[in-house]
This record gives sequence, C-alpha cells and structure tokens, in this order.
Amino acid sequence: MNAPSRVWNTLQANRAQRLQRARAALGCALDGKVLPAAHIGDLLHGVLECGDRVCLEGNNQKQADFLGQALARLDPARINGLHMLLSVLALPEHLDVFERGVAARLDFSFSGPQAARVAKLVAAGKLNIGAIHTYLELFARYFVDLAPRVCLVAAEAADRHGNLYTGPNTEDTPAIVEATAFKNGIVIVQANRIMETLPRVDIPGDWVDFVVQSPRPYYIEPLFTRDPAQISEIQVLMAMTAIKGIYAEYQVERLNHGIGFDTAAIELLLPTYATDLGLKGKIARHWALNPHPALIPAIESGFVESVYSFGSELGMEDYVRARPDVFSVGPDGSMRSNRALCQAAGHYACDMFIGSTLQIDLQGNSSTATLGRISGFGGAPNMGADARGRRHASPAWLKAGRQAREGRNAIPRGQKLVVQIVETFREHMQPAFVERLDAWELAEQAGMAIPPVMIYGDDVTHILTEEGIANLLLCRDDDEREQAIRGVAGYTAVGMARDKRMVENLRDRGAIVRPEDIGVDKRLATRDLLAAKSMKDLVRASGGLYQPPKRFRNW
Amino acid sequence: MNAPSRVWNTLQANRAQRLQRARAALGCALDGKVLPAAHIGDLLHGVLECGDRVCLEGNNQKQADFLGQALARLDPARINGLHMLLSVLALPEHLDVFERGVAARLDFSFSGPQAARVAKLVAAGKLNIGAIHTYLELFARYFVDLAPRVCLVAAEAADRHGNLYTGPNTEDTPAIVEATAFKNGIVIVQANRIMETLPRVDIPGDWVDFVVQSPRPYYIEPLFTRDPAQISEIQVLMAMTAIKGIYAEYQVERLNHGIGFDTAAIELLLPTYATDLGLKGKIARHWALNPHPALIPAIESGFVESVYSFGSELGMEDYVRARPDVFSVGPDGSMRSNRALCQAAGHYACDMFIGSTLQIDLQGNSSTATLGRISGFGGAPNMGADARGRRHASPAWLKAGRQAREGRNAIPRGQKLVVQIVETFREHMQPAFVERLDAWELAEQAGMAIPPVMIYGDDVTHILTEEGIANLLLCRDDDEREQAIRGVAGYTAVGMARDKRMVENLRDRGAIVRPEDIGVDKRLATRDLLAAKSMKDLVRASGGLYQPPKRFRNW
Repeated sequence: MNAPSRVWNTLQANRAQRLQRARAALGCALDGKVLPAAHIGDLLHGVLECGDRVCLEGNNQKQADFLGQALARLDPARINGLHMLLSVLALPEHLDVFERGVAARLDFSFSGPQAARVAKLVAAGKLNIGAIHTYLELFARYFVDLAPRVCLVAAEAADRHGNLYTGPNTEDTPAIVEATAFKNGIVIVQANRIMETLPRVDIPGDWVDFVVQSPRPYYIEPLFTRDPAQISEIQVLMAMTAIKGIYAEYQVERLNHGIGFDTAAIELLLPTYATDLGLKGKIARHWALNPHPALIPAIESGFVESVYSFGSELGMEDYVRARPDVFSVGPDGSMRSNRALCQAAGHYACDMFIGSTLQIDLQGNSSTATLGRISGFGGAPNMGADARGRRHASPAWLKAGRQAREGRNAIPRGQKLVVQIVETFREHMQPAFVERLDAWELAEQAGMAIPPVMIYGDDVTHILTEEGIANLLLCRDDDEREQAIRGVAGYTAVGMARDKRMVENLRDRGAIVRPEDIGVDKRLATRDLLAAKSMKDLVRASGGLYQPPKRFRNW
Repeated sequence: MNAPSRVWNTLQANRAQRLQRARAALGCALDGKVLPAAHIGDLLHGVLECGDRVCLEGNNQKQADFLGQALARLDPARINGLHMLLSVLALPEHLDVFERGVAARLDFSFSGPQAARVAKLVAAGKLNIGAIHTYLELFARYFVDLAPRVCLVAAEAADRHGNLYTGPNTEDTPAIVEATAFKNGIVIVQANRIMETLPRVDIPGDWVDFVVQSPRPYYIEPLFTRDPAQISEIQVLMAMTAIKGIYAEYQVERLNHGIGFDTAAIELLLPTYATDLGLKGKIARHWALNPHPALIPAIESGFVESVYSFGSELGMEDYVRARPDVFSVGPDGSMRSNRALCQAAGHYACDMFIGSTLQIDLQGNSSTATLGRISGFGGAPNMGADARGRRHASPAWLKAGRQAREGRNAIPRGQKLVVQIVETFREHMQPAFVERLDAWELAEQAGMAIPPVMIYGDDVTHILTEEGIANLLLCRDDDEREQAIRGVAGYTAVGMARDKRMVENLRDRGAIVRPEDIGVDKRLATRDLLAAKSMKDLVRASGGLYQPPKRFRNW
C-alpha cells in the first residue's frame, strides 16, 4: 500500500502561515517573543482568521482585559464570525466583540454581571450560544471538540522567551494554554511585567508564541470578599443550624463553600460556636476554596488544616504567603492556584458542597437563571453534583449513601452532601421557593434544549433555611420530597401550602429538622457569635497581613 | 493584637532540612540538580522520613521503575512506615516496599497484574489499604488530603536545571509534580537522558528538586495494543450490534473505549461496516483515547477527527507524529498526553463510555474484583458514571436523558451513555452474569466499608452481549431491569432463569434489542469485516509508520 495521499498537517501548516503573517506585520518590533502594546492590533489582525475559535481568558477573577479590548477594536470587515470561548463573561468588552460583529458564537460558563446584556444580544440575533457549561466541563471540551485556534491569556510576568509567571492567580491559564499549544494553535499573553528572571516559571516558554506587556496590570475582581458587617442574625441562626445539623451530624471534614454571606457566616462561626461544640479537628479540616478573608479567624484558631484554591483573592497575598502550611505555595513562597485541578478536587475529594441559589422548585431543582438574564452556572454544577465516579469512603459519604438507600434493595454506595442554603425570601421579598423555575420560560425564550438548572433536585441532599433543614435523603418518594421542601419554605406561597400533618410526620422521622430539634439555641443567634464583625476585625485577626481592597475599607 | 505565635511554616522548614541533608549526603556528586544513578540510595535516605506520604509514579503505562527499585532497597531500619500513593501498582517492586517493611499503607487506583499479591499482603497485615480510587479521584486527593511529601517520577529527558521533557508519555507526571512542588514537598525525577537543550519543556525546572539519569529507559507497557488476529466472529457480531444499535441510534460523536478485544473490534469495523451504513462523519468523530493501534484504519479512512490521550502507546510515536491534525502534538511535533485532563475530558466531554467487565449482577452492577484479587478500577468509574455536573447538550445525551425520564414527572436532563459489552461466558466458561458479585465476599475478606463495584447499575445504560442489547434506560423498575439483564445473559444460569414472557414484552418495547431486530445480518459477522486482521495489516494501514513492539511481531 502506498503512503496515504491525504494531507494530515493542515493545522501545523496553518499555524506556520499565521506566525509568518504576524512576524511580517510586526517586523523588528518583536524582541524574542515580546512585542510592544501599541502593536497588538497588528498581531491580532495578522494571526486571526474569520470564524476562528478564540479562547479569551475571562476568569472568575483575573481578566485578560487588554487583549479583550484589543479584540473588540478589530476591524469586523477583516475579522468576523469568531467563535468565542470564555469561562466567565465579566467585562463589557466580552460582549462588545459580538455587538461589533467581530464574533458570532459563544461557549461559556458564567456571565454574572453581563447576564442581561447576553440575553439581549441573543434576542437580537447577534450572539449565538453554543452551550452553557460548568468550568471543568468547558475546559474538558477544549481538549475534545472545542480546541482553541488562538488563545489570549493573562500572566503576572513573562520573560522574553515566553516563560510565564502566573503566580497566585493562575486560575484557568494552564488548561487554556495546554489545549491551544498542543493542537497547533497560537498562544498570546498579556503580562503585567516583562522580567529578566521570573520568581518561578508556571508555564514553559515553549508553549507560548507572543507576549505583550500590558499598559496596566490585568483587571482582577475581589469576588470572594464578604464584609462581616453585612451578615444578619438570621444568617447566624442558619449557620448554627448548618454546623450542628449537617457538619457535625455527618462529620464533614473536606468541603467547598459557595460565595455568599450565608456561608461566610458559617466560616465566622467555626472559631466560636463550632469550637464550643468541641468540633475543632473533627469537621472542616480540608478545603477546596479560594482564600476567603472570612476564613481567616478559623485558620488562626487552628480549625483549618489545608486550603487548595481555584484562584486567589485580592489583598490576601501576604497573608497566604505567611501561612504556607495551610495554602499551596511554591518554592518562591507565593501561592499556586489551578481552577481545573481544584474543580476536580471539589468534585472528587470533598464530602460536601454548600451554597446559595436564587430559586428552588418543589423537586429541589435550583437555578440562578431568571427572566431576561442568561447567567450560567460557574463551578456549582460540578461541585453540587453527586460524584458518581468516586470510590473512596469517608464517614460523611457513607452516611449520606446509607440514608439515601435505607429500605431499598440497592448495593451500598456513598453519596456526596449537596446543601442549598437560602433564606425563604431574598432581596425585595422575592420568594426563594417557587412552583416553577423561571428557567423554563428562559429556555423557551433563548431556544435552549432544556431548562438551565444549576443544581438538580436529584443531587441535592439538604435544603437549609431559617425554618430548618429538609433532609431529602430521607424522603422516600416525590410527595415526601415536596412536603419536606414546603416544610422549610416559611411564609412563601410554597411554604404556606404545606400539608401540616405530613410535615409533622417528616419531622418525626428526621426528614425535617428544626433548629430546636437539635438543640440550637436561638437566643445565641446574634452577631456576637461572629468571630469577626467587620472588615477591620478580619484585618486584625490576620495580624495586619490581610490588606482589603479600597472599596472594603470603611475606616 | 500581636502577631500569632503559632509556627505556620513547618512544611517549608522541614523541606529545607531535607534538602540540606540530601546535599550533605551527595556533596560534589551533584551537578546542578543532577546526580549520578549510583547515589540514588544516599539521596533517598537523606530526603525521606519515616511515615512520609510518597507518591511513586506507577502509571497505567510509564513506570518510574529505577526509583521504585531504589525505594524497595532502602534500609527499613532507617526508613519505614511510608504511606505509598500510586495510581497503578504494576511492578513487583511496588509491593516489595511493603514486603520489606519500608512502606505500610497504600492509596491507589489499579493493580491489575499484582492484584493477587496485594490481597495476600493485606491478609498478612503487611499492607494497609487507605482506599481504592478512580484516577482523577486519586489525583484530586493529592491536592486536598493526600499531598505527597516526596514524589518519584519519570521523564523522557531533563536538563541540569531540572526542566523536564515528558513527551508523548506525560500521563500522570504533571498532576503529581504540581501537588508535591506546591505543598513544599520534594520532587525527584528519573530521566532517560540528560540533555543540554530539551525538545520542549513540559514541566518547569523550578518545580523539580533532583534529577537522576536512569541506567536504562523507564519501563513502559504497551497496554492498548490488541492483535486483530485474536478477534472472534462473536466479537464482530457484537461490534456490529453496538454500531447499529447504539452508536447510530444515539448519534454518538464523542466517546471513550475501554481496553479489550470487544471494543477493538468496533474500532476495526468503523471503516467497513459503519462506513457502509453511511455513518462516516456522523458517529465516533472525537475520542478521549490513547493512540490505539486498532484505530489506525478508522483514522486513515477519515472516520476520526480528533483523539486526545491519557498516555501514549509503544510503537505509535512516528504514526502520531505524522498525523498531527488528529492527535495533540506540541510545537516540537511529538504528542502531549495528560491523564488528569483526559480523564476530565472522558467524564465531561464524551457522550459515551463503552468497556468490558468480568462480572455483572442482576442490578447491572459490574466489577473486576474477584476472590483473592484486589485489582482496583483505573479510569472506568470516572468515565463509566453519569457526569451529573454536565450541562451542555448533544443529541446522544438528550436522547438518553429522555429515555430515562419517560413517563416520570422529572425536569428534563441529559444522561451519559455507559455501555458494558461482554460475552455471556468469559475465559474458562466463567459466566459474566452472576446473582451476587464476588465483590461482596472480597469486601468482607479485606475489611472494606462497601463492596468494590467498578460501575454501578444506576449508571449503566446498556448491556451488550452476543444475544443483544439490554437498554436499562427503558426499564421502569427493578424487576424489569433484572429481566432485561437476564434476557441478554444467554445460557448462563442467570440467563436461563429468565421470565420468558416478560423478556418478550421488554423486547416489544425496545428494552431488549436482538441483532435481527435492528437489521444486523448475522451472516456478515465474519472476520472479513475487520479492516485489519493482523498486526501486519495495522502496520500496512499506517503506511509503515506504526512499529509494534517485538512481542506483537509474528511475521
């Protein structure tokens, strides 16, 4: 048989052409792999082709904003129809590329602050959504059917060989660059600084094609900072109930917390309430979590053994550096984060995920999608799902699995604890419990195949409100599950429509737990129980190492 | 408040002590980070401490065998009680460390060839198993509660600064090194070659402490090579049934295949049977798969668009290098693999996992654990589980989800296809279908918390035998599921005990599918349908690029 005649290196050949065009456009402006910021338009016009899949590093925190703005300024007559891959759409320029016609299609994970504008662009036919993903799912597709042709990422520093120092805010960068570089794509980096010698190399220069020194440091959002001053006494009560009714009950040692004041309250009760209950060393020892400032008092009190992070948090750099036994730091002393690996850790190495949501229906499905807003899910679906591939046992996992299988003819299996913590009414007296999720109508509006559910009722094990805990593991059928949910839904319409007798029966069986059933003393539920009551308290607890961003400094 | 008095850098301080001891022991034998092979014992005695968690790179394929042997030769009076972390226990020295008392505890994923010896050491009290994991789960724990204090890994080449080239067989190395280096652990590497300039840098030297040039190249196992000559006509029939009854039925575009002749037969039928059915470009386009030699004809025929790999396969190097549009290759032209990311891809970016097993019970639970053998699960639990965090839709995923929810009051949700493909009798006429898995008895013998199930019946969607397909998605209760399984279990005792009327009813409903029901012509089920019938055919199909290891060359 003769050698096959088909050409098998179209990507390699195309890459060489792109590099040649770029080098021709840049000429002697290139120093090694480094070009001046003023030439970024030339580089992008040279390197890009219409219809390219382009991964722009929009992370949960760090943003390749300089490159994003440059992309949005391209001439749509020359470059158009791009298929954008972004884990997070956070900045206006992420949508300007669609508005201006440079891009046409989008696969993403989260669009929090831009959710309303995404919905408008979809309605106007300017933005075609491929799909909404959880982070690790989107990264996984970068390696299978969504390989980026070009990626635009952000680094703390680079050298002229293209070696990158991504430091504490490494986040998505390694996964994006690996997927691009090893599929003959082009890797372009904005760096805050060009240095002769880097503090450490996080990404080898061999994987990188071009580096541009950004005129200003990349934008970064302090997404995980919660001011303890805003925590309410209701939230203190809910935190007490969580600690006694779930953390202690299941001996939860490894966990992830969502963003929000509900879980910040729990973090601030570990050194006080949980310690008084004798739980130190028994619960909440290992965390998959960003360096939450609200965790400082728990760390200082010795409650926390380790924290592995998706990304960092502004102002926590010195504190993290001074606590290397707790955080993952490199030989240079600064933290390493990695969103892909930390999502794997959250999925497979944690016994519990606890987080808030906007709406919960009678089956326990929850969603942050509301009408006119296409917001995505972030990491919640990955961490708020039973990890069915998990095989190692722990007391929490075994107990949840036993409860779910009680009285059923099923082979023993553990289960992850997935807890939704919500007040029955959220801002503006919107009920958290609804008969029907807005997600249904949104799916219809936006032409989605199925409603965008953040966490499915099948995966939720507990719903916790100020009225108590609904333990869905102990519900034997859909009716019981519905009544257990109504039974903690307070004065919402859903809660008022409960079958009182069934709710009392569920309570007798432990499928509904009221704070008083487990000895939670409501009189103690005051802000005095918080280990820090203000940002200043957090700074003090850190021994002055934590330096909150300006907007959080009210002293 | 004063600065806290607790010491927060014990790991850093301990790391410094270890490095100091090692440097003292090695003296001027060190050249940069490189030491001669003869000094490996000095290094390990210097660096290790009793009770350390030590991650030894035993991969599915690549083995840090030189370091493993050196570890097994240590003086147990000086170094003992080590807690070993290995994804795969493949070599005798992996167990010698327990036999000799150097190590005492083990967390792992797979122990195929050593499974019987593992069971014996457990029974003798010399080996204490922490847990058995799927690969990604074990890696996840490296970052949370099982951080290695010292890791021993293998590279293709290194330079004197410790930069590593791991090349096509990168496999587990990045995850292991990242977890160790960023928790102040010690990273030790055996390299086949020390070079002045590496083909490319896969792992930055900043993450590496010591490199030793191994006296011989690391051992590597051609685990994914299947000689087409050994494929039976029964397997051809099953492959035809799989292609028509599952791949075409669900339009499976992205998938993973297990190891084995059953799935190799499918790979070899894509260019013939599947192409005749007009399925080219419609199924099996994107793969999370090692470079299986049996996939060569499908690649050459243009059936396969992309393959992303966990590791490489011996003899496939030149072929892969010549097909860069299909495989993930770096700027240097050689492949990059990454087991952690490819397991994420298998979990989240694939619509189907199909693989074999040893035993299936009446609930569809399957296990490769048999009496007297503690074998572990490898990647199967991660890929053979519904990815409940997944949110992007595809036709296959939506259809499986619809079938699972038909007639139920449940919110729409997709589902992964998880197919078990087995002949009803395996070697030595052992039935593949059993009333009770051996895993139950093994759990009792070895003191496991729950029986070691590889894939749970809850996650299995189809069971395919020579008798047909049991579609568990369409079974409405445990009884139907049991009869659907009996209905494809052939002449095994489980199959003979079927309720014939119920089986026929299930067949009428499509919950059981016979080959003839979907127009699979059994007369075509001969070896003539295989696109390659021998190793030589595979070499020929590759245009001479594939170079099988000696033991597979029978010409």
